[in-house]
Amino acid sequence: MRSLLLLTAVALLIGAAPEKKLLTPTDIVTAAPGAAWKTIAADDLLVLDLKSGGRVVVQLAPQFAPVHVANIQALARGKYWDGATIYRVQDNYVAQWGLNESDKPWPAGVTAKPPAEYTRALKGLSVKPLGYADPYAPGAGFVNGWPVAYSPKGGWANLAHCYGTVGVGRNLSPDTGTGGELYAIIGQPTRHMDRNLAVVGRVIQGIGNLSSLPRGTEGLGFYKDKAQYVPIVRIRLASDMPAGERPSYQYMDSASPSFARYIRARANRLDDFYRRPAGGVDLCNVQVPVIERPNVPLRRD
Amino acid sequence: MRSLLLLTAVALLIGAAPEKKLLTPTDIVTAAPGAAWKTIAADDLLVLDLKSGGRVVVQLAPQFAPVHVANIQALARGKYWDGATIYRVQDNYVAQWGLNESDKPWPAGVTAKPPAEYTRALKGLSVKPLGYADPYAPGAGFVNGWPVAYSPKGGWANLAHCYGTVGVGRNLSPDTGTGGELYAIIGQPTRHMDRNLAVVGRVIQGIGNLSSLPRGTEGLGFYKDKAQYVPIVRIRLASDMPAGERPSYQYMDSASPSFARYIRARANRLDDFYRRPAGGVDLCNVQVPVIERPNVPLRRD
Repeated sequence: MRSLLLLTAVALLIGAAPEKKLLTPTDIVTAAPGAAWKTIAADDLLVLDLKSGGRVVVQLAPQFAPVHVANIQALARGKYWDGATIYRVQDNYVAQWGLNESDKPWPAGVTAKPPAEYTRALKGLSVKPLGYADPYAPGAGFVNGWPVAYSPKGGWANLAHCYGTVGVGRNLSPDTGTGGELYAIIGQPTRHMDRNLAVVGRVIQGIGNLSSLPRGTEGLGFYKDKAQYVPIVRIRLASDMPAGERPSYQYMDSASPSFARYIRARANRLDDFYRRPAGGVDLCNVQVPVIERPNVPLRRD
Repeated sequence: MRSLLLLTAVALLIGAAPEKKLLTPTDIVTAAPGAAWKTIAADDLLVLDLKSGGRVVVQLAPQFAPVHVANIQALARGKYWDGATIYRVQDNYVAQWGLNESDKPWPAGVTAKPPAEYTRALKGLSVKPLGYADPYAPGAGFVNGWPVAYSPKGGWANLAHCYGTVGVGRNLSPDTGTGGELYAIIGQPTRHMDRNLAVVGRVIQGIGNLSSLPRGTEGLGFYKDKAQYVPIVRIRLASDMPAGERPSYQYMDSASPSFARYIRARANRLDDFYRRPAGGVDLCNVQVPVIERPNVPLRRD
């Protein structure tokens, strides 16, 4: 009996497929204690209300692209996006919105030519490593709930282009875009865009309202006729919404034990449906849990 | 001068970022000679015509799941799918079609309980290695235009779950599904499904007709009401279509010099738009070129 137990223990230690079922990612999210969650500040929530009735909520990432994010906050507060539409939907690539090459003047507080915030310094970031190889960077992991690629030797880090990632549309280099035209990834991760565009956030609610839109038939997925443009009624920061109407969200803390368990579960599915665990997972497929929590008081963690 | 030239050569050899622009993936596809292309057999093309007028074409993979693919061919020839619909669309996951739990009898030639064709023997496959790390398997590369994960030690290979990959819906293990209910990946790659489901092909045309459908609101993305089901007028093999109506496609040969150049270009974008090459690419983001070629005579390569 003892040798059997030891063998089982050894099999588990060396990573052989255990015979018993494991917790699913959903099990782990459901069981995660309150301390495993961090609240997103209302200033960092950009809320798009579509004329169709659908809502898209973007979490902004001031830690990674401070000038571009400050621009976006100023554009929202200055009502720059009145009359904005979604005018480009390219299959397996991006949905893009804004005023589409408008000459409308920038509101106060907008930096017209922001720096290339394609990376930031790795220094100062506390990274939870993914633990598996990433083909796009020497390192990959999570910082405050964000999927991040990085180079200890190069000293840089960047937000990864995953499903739902939001970035700043731009023209050819060295233009970096101002923030007036934004795209969201609606297909497979476009990691080749990492370090070539300014990533400013991610869609945390309603991405299906973008990804299910009709594809544009012109080059790069632009809609052919303006009649096809998808109207956006308004774009606001949650902090500018009436208190009773503000949405509120929490993400799973990258430093929490729950998140470590969650990564392991994403890499090793073994339950009634999955019988052969992959033994690995890629950065974007971890899918950091973000949950709407209407009753959690808003604070900046 | 000589030392400068040498330094340049060495810099190129050791993979340092070259200063000059590189060919784009599109440049390489456009310039690829006829010998770089292989024609897909008409028996391996499953054509779905939607009531909306949209068409979805699936390339079948008999080399990887012969019993399931033979079933699908028998189901198409036996008109099993008359009355089929798309009844499940889960955002960033799958669109699924078929008769949805029907009791309709199988046509002749269908194996009711196929083996678990989740992997096949690596032996006998000629693999073009990707050349970059894959978190889901010891090896990754391409076989006859298919993205494949494999283990030289384990002796197995499997088709990877990328955007557009088509697999066989099933219930809990050990059921493997018959082929009557099929899914296509409409979001980020679901590589954790590798080796847990039977992959039978990929969408090579019209994936946008699936990925842009309204998302189902029931659990797992099932449509709530039958009125929401998306009708499919007919599902046929191209080989059963009148000669003048048959679509025809070619994929870029994995063994061709053009494809080797294409992988390098996907891993190292450097042009007027992209200024920082990633230096790597993941298996699904290579996106094997497949082109409709109406004038190429059909043959099995």
